This record gives sequence, C-alpha cells and structure tokens, in this order.
Amino acid sequence: MDTVADIGEFGIIKRLSAYAGAHPDVLEGIGDDCAVVRMSGRVVLVSTDMFVEGTHFRRATAEPRAIGWKAAAAALSDIAAMGGSPTCCLVSLGCGRDTDAAFLESLYRGMSELLAECGVALVGGDTTGTDGALALDVVVLGEPAGQRYVTRKGARPGDVLAVTGWPGTSAAGLCALERGHAAPELVRAHRYPRPRIVEGQWFCAHDAVRAMIDLSDGLVSDANHLAEASGTGVDIDPEQVPLAPALRAYATGPERSAAGESVEAAARAFALTGGEDYELAVAVAAGQAVGLIGAFKERFGVPLSTVGQFTDAWFGARVAGQSPERGGFDHFR
Amino acid sequence: MDTVADIGEFGIIKRLSAYAGAHPDVLEGIGDDCAVVRMSGRVVLVSTDMFVEGTHFRRATAEPRAIGWKAAAAALSDIAAMGGSPTCCLVSLGCGRDTDAAFLESLYRGMSELLAECGVALVGGDTTGTDGALALDVVVLGEPAGQRYVTRKGARPGDVLAVTGWPGTSAAGLCALERGHAAPELVRAHRYPRPRIVEGQWFCAHDAVRAMIDLSDGLVSDANHLAEASGTGVDIDPEQVPLAPALRAYATGPERSAAGESVEAAARAFALTGGEDYELAVAVAAGQAVGLIGAFKERFGVPLSTVGQFTDAWFGARVAGQSPERGGFDHFR
Repeated sequence: MDTVADIGEFGIIKRLSAYAGAHPDVLEGIGDDCAVVRMSGRVVLVSTDMFVEGTHFRRATAEPRAIGWKAAAAALSDIAAMGGSPTCCLVSLGCGRDTDAAFLESLYRGMSELLAECGVALVGGDTTGTDGALALDVVVLGEPAGQRYVTRKGARPGDVLAVTGWPGTSAAGLCALERGHAAPELVRAHRYPRPRIVEGQWFCAHDAVRAMIDLSDGLVSDANHLAEASGTGVDIDPEQVPLAPALRAYATGPERSAAGESVEAAARAFALTGGEDYELAVAVAAGQAVGLIGAFKERFGVPLSTVGQFTDAWFGARVAGQSPERGGFDHFR
Repeated sequence: MDTVADIGEFGIIKRLSAYAGAHPDVLEGIGDDCAVVRMSGRVVLVSTDMFVEGTHFRRATAEPRAIGWKAAAAALSDIAAMGGSPTCCLVSLGCGRDTDAAFLESLYRGMSELLAECGVALVGGDTTGTDGALALDVVVLGEPAGQRYVTRKGARPGDVLAVTGWPGTSAAGLCALERGHAAPELVRAHRYPRPRIVEGQWFCAHDAVRAMIDLSDGLVSDANHLAEASGTGVDIDPEQVPLAPALRAYATGPERSAAGESVEAAARAFALTGGEDYELAVAVAAGQAVGLIGAFKERFGVPLSTVGQFTDAWFGARVAGQSPERGGFDHFR
C-alpha cells in the first residue's frame, strides 16, 4: 500500500489529475491557481481552497476573525494570481456540535470584512457536522479584469523573477505567536494578509509579465511551481530577497540572537521558505524589468524586487545554483 | 455560550447568512439549492457541498468508488434542482497522511464516472492534510438549460406537491448495509444515486412547475424547505407517497417483520424521512398536474407522484395535517 505520505502532495495531485478529462471549454484545468472555463462564451475563473483545523490553524494561536479573514484571503489570492477580478464567494463549513456559535460568527465576520473590502459577495455555501475539527472550504468565482489572464506557464529562460512586497513576514508572525514573542506587525501580517488583487490586474495589463503565481507555499516552492509549469528552471539569489524592516528587527531581537542564529540567515530563511504571504511572484521579460519595477513602485508604493532569473540550465527552482533542501510545505509529508 | 447544537443547523445558517451582503449581480443568494449570479451579463449557477467521514459516510459501509460517486451526485443534484445544465466541477480533498493512495484513486474514479456520464469536466481543486478524517468539498458550476431557472420559492396555496421516482430507497439501503441484510437494489440506490438533471431541465421548460427542490434531507424536510421558502404550508398525504417495489419487499422481509413493525409503516417511514435520494420534489399548478404527471411518465418511464398539496392554512410541512415529530436530518442535533 502506498500512502499519501509516501507519494507526497504533488504526487497525489498528479495521480488524481488523471481523472480530469479534457474538454473544449476548459481553458486551464488542474495545475494553475484557478481553473479557467468558458461558460456561454465568457471566461470564468474559479478556485476552491480548503482550511482545516490543526493543519492551517490552531484555535490556540488563531483568533476566529483571523481564521475567516485568512481563508478568504487565500481564496481571493488565487484569483489575484491570474489577474482576475473576483465576483462572488461560497463557503462550506464543517464543525462539531459543541462549536460556539459566537466563534463561528466572528469567523464569518472576519471573512465578510475582507470580502466587502474587495467588493465580493458571499452568495452561498454548505454546513455539515464533523467529529470535532473545524473545516472550511472557500470557493471564489471571478472574471478576467482585462483582455487576458496570466498563468504559471509562460516564463522563458532569461526572464527575471520578481516578487511584490515582503515575503516571509507571515511565517515570522506565526513563529512569534507560537514562541510568545512580541512582534505585532508580523503577527498582523500572519493573521490579516491582503491578497494583491489590484496588483495582479496591473501585471496582467503589462505584456512584459509572462507568468504569475501567488506565494502560498513559500517563495522557493512557488518559484519552483512557476518554473516547472513553464518547463524551465529558475535561480533565486538569496541576497536579493527583500527583508521587511519588521522581519529584520525580529531577527535581530534578543530572543533570536540568544539562540545564536545569524540574523541575516534567520530573516532570509523566513523570506525564502515562509508561506501564506499572498505576495505575487512574476516572470518578467528581462529587457522590461527595470521599467516595470519602477512603474510598480510608483503606482503602489510597494517594492517589486528582482530575486532571480529563469534559466534553461536546469529544471525547477534552485537557490544560488543549489537545489534547496526543503522546498516549502507539503501537506502529506 | 450557545453551541451550534443548541441553535441547530438551520438556526446557524440564518445567523451566518447575516454576513452575506446584497449585490445587484446576486440573483439568488443563500437559501436555495444553488447560488445564482450574473457574470458579464450571463447567469451562472454554483453550488458547494461538503462530505465528511463519520457524518456522510463511514469507510466500513461505503466503498471508495461510491463515496466519490455520491459526493458528485449530491453536488450535481443541486444544479438539477434548479433546472440547470452542469458544466464543470472542482474538488477539495482533505485526508490524513496514512490514507491509502489507491483508496483515493477509487474515490476519484467513482466521481469521474458520474461526471463523465453527465458531460461535466473536473477542472480543479485543492488538497490538504487533516488529523485523519477524510473531507471532500465538491463545487459544481452550471448554467440555466433554458429560458429560466426554478427556485424553492414560488409554490402557491392550492398547488400540488409531486415527487419523482422512489423516495426512501437510499435510506433503506443504508439500513440494510448497517444491519447486514441482503437488499442489493436498495444498496445500489444508496451507493450510486443518479441526479435527475434531464428531469430538472424538463420541469424548467414547463411553466406549470412553480418551485423545485431535490431530496437530500428527506421528503418531509425538503417539502418543508419548499413551503417555507414560498411563504406557505404543505400537507403531505402519507398514503400517496410511492413505495418502490424493492422497498416494499425489504419491509416485508423476515428481518423487518421479525421486529414486529407494520410493513407499510416501515416502508412509508423510509419514504417520508429518508434522505440522499436526489429525487426532485416540485410544486405544480393544480389544474395542470394531471397532464404534467402523464407527460413526465411518458417521457422518462419513471413515476411522478402527487404526494400533497400546498395550503395557506399553516406554515411549513405537515403530514396528514399533523406536525411531523422529526422533519429530517439536522447536522448539529
């Protein structure tokens, strides 16, 4: 017997994908951030994300409003990662009979706050009992905001890998929460991330952007997804990965330095492998990268940082030319 | 503290529905079988259904192919219940690390068999680890097959309540499985139900059909949903509820009669309260009911049976004028 732990998350996805048939109205099937289908001639983006207690959150460290907010953020980010405009949302909820109704209301309040901010209507869902653990599945539908949508495929050797904002802050925030360290800015980044919807649409309007993904698993892992989907390789330069001031401050704080870790190394590890930031990583045509980076910063007041380059010298993601030991989160390993 | 068990499934849905905002493109929000939204001017139906081990199935009695088939059937049936044409499907899967990959493949095989039969493409999903229990969330998108879609609202006092096929066979099949009785036809009805997609579209094309729902909770409970959504009452005549030959045979079998139960009463209890049949219940304008029932039988070779009448004498469903003691399945009670 092969268990899913033997095969790993991406192995099992590959096996189960065999049951997805081809269809002329399926423009993008399994393997991208959203599915893209044609309905009555119109293009619809749709994504589904499951959140399970014990895996995605623990009630001890996650306040209920944040559980709802984050679940919505992750789902909306899938639409953002293709440059889409989210339209509506459905939520399936499974919970035990002894669940506090006020806890669920806080969770839905957090979800609806972010949905309202993004102009997305909650239109339906399902409720079911479980043996105890809370499970949520969030479905978001959207449409392309402009003339095209951007997938993970399309990066070419020589393209620049660039990332928005400050990867690693969410993972550092979780670390601070679990260890009882005071790091309010990082904790906020962990609990209340904002999907980069407008930024994704902006990338979509620039032809220099050839491929896009959101950082849910972590920069190295998600860059690997981009490279694999594009049939190419990518080399990440760890020195170029931007370190948020709050992340750098946390890494130099007494708790961390007492552990004898190199400050730079600790902050960089968060930025390279920490997930759930919902920043966007893009492949940009090399000749247009400088102009795009300047225009992005001017438009959004947020950095877009060059962190690597696509290459035909190998397949998948490497860090400074080396295969990473651990490429992000695998649900089954 | 109010737990969800204190409030009940329908109470908690009401509370959480407060977080769904109104939106001009939301044609039908929470409270019907599907959400109906307008995207780029086109009407899209979307439904999400969660299935959790221990609540919806147990590995001891459910073969994996049937778990997948049934999850797909329930989700497709939501589209059928509005007269829609299903287009594509996404599946979120949560399972423990020790789950057998072959078990998951059988589950996906069952799901894909029914999807293929219905011309529906599996286009995406999500995978996540859990502490052990298997959880599935199945999302189906569809479109109205004709000029309109039919909701739960719209039944009027005097309308006839009619039901397709043979309600109660699925619940009787589960009972047979759990007690080790031989009842292959009922077990098949429990494991491999067929959503009435073409029948739903046919109802939609007949203006005499004013409201529709699929039987997932059970005839009495789902008739109650129809009546409540329509702001009316309905009286179910238990003598008119059709009893499948296999259900009647099972109820007269040695195992049941040994228990001293009335054969008719036992069979009728399954037909009135047993869920997961995915038959359709419709409200039909009284003057056109006889013609519609004849035309349905001629078209599909399946009975459409008058089982009650809508009334303004009370609110919700009654059985022979009496409030039912137990109106179907509540996930939290």
